Amino acid sequence: MKISNYHDVEPVEEIEGIFKREVITADDGAPNFSMRVFEIKPGSSVPSHSHPWEHEVFILSGQGMAVGKQGTTPISQETVIFVAPDEPHCFVNTGNEPLRFICLIPLQQK
Amino acid sequence: MKISNYHDVEPVEEIEGIFKREVITADDGAPNFSMRVFEIKPGSSVPSHSHPWEHEVFILSGQGMAVGKQGTTPISQETVIFVAPDEPHCFVNTGNEPLRFICLIPLQQK
Repeated sequence: MKISNYHDVEPVEEIEGIFKREVITADDGAPNFSMRVFEIKPGSSVPSHSHPWEHEVFILSGQGMAVGKQGTTPISQETVIFVAPDEPHCFVNTGNEPLRFICLIPLQQK
Repeated sequence: MKISNYHDVEPVEEIEGIFKREVITADDGAPNFSMRVFEIKPGSSVPSHSHPWEHEVFILSGQGMAVGKQGTTPISQETVIFVAPDEPHCFVNTGNEPLRFICLIPLQQK
């Protein structure tokens, strides 16, 4: 059993204002999917994009918008989001604190 | 994109003191894994058990213990837990408020 605090993982800023921590990965023995914790800085957003894999997301804290074919929807703590494969999606931090969320994807993806 | 609050799902109490909400499932179009939100009442615990699938867990709030072959480890908000397939595991609420966590499993499992 691997037990840790998500802050133990150094964040990576691949996109400006977006900090990613890969907290459960194949290196831990995960056979099917991985867990990441994201923090989006105030004023930043994950640009709209799509890919042939899904996202399962749980918002931990903060205020934002999820943008997709359904339109624009407010998101906040305890919001659950399922993004289907190939569905365009964009997350925007509209608040004054980091928008933090857990995002899980199947393995073999980035 | 399915967007909801986890409280929108009615909890199921399959084990006394353990409330489960299946918030992302195959019915939503999830192709690989499902997301559940659990609340363990103060004084309750998930009995020790094992199964041939993994758990990926993120503690949302509360205080507890994770018991397994590694021994007994305190868990609390922002703790990340990976339980490997077939690994015995038990979660105990040792606090005065519900122990709430997200737990994801591969599909075809219960």
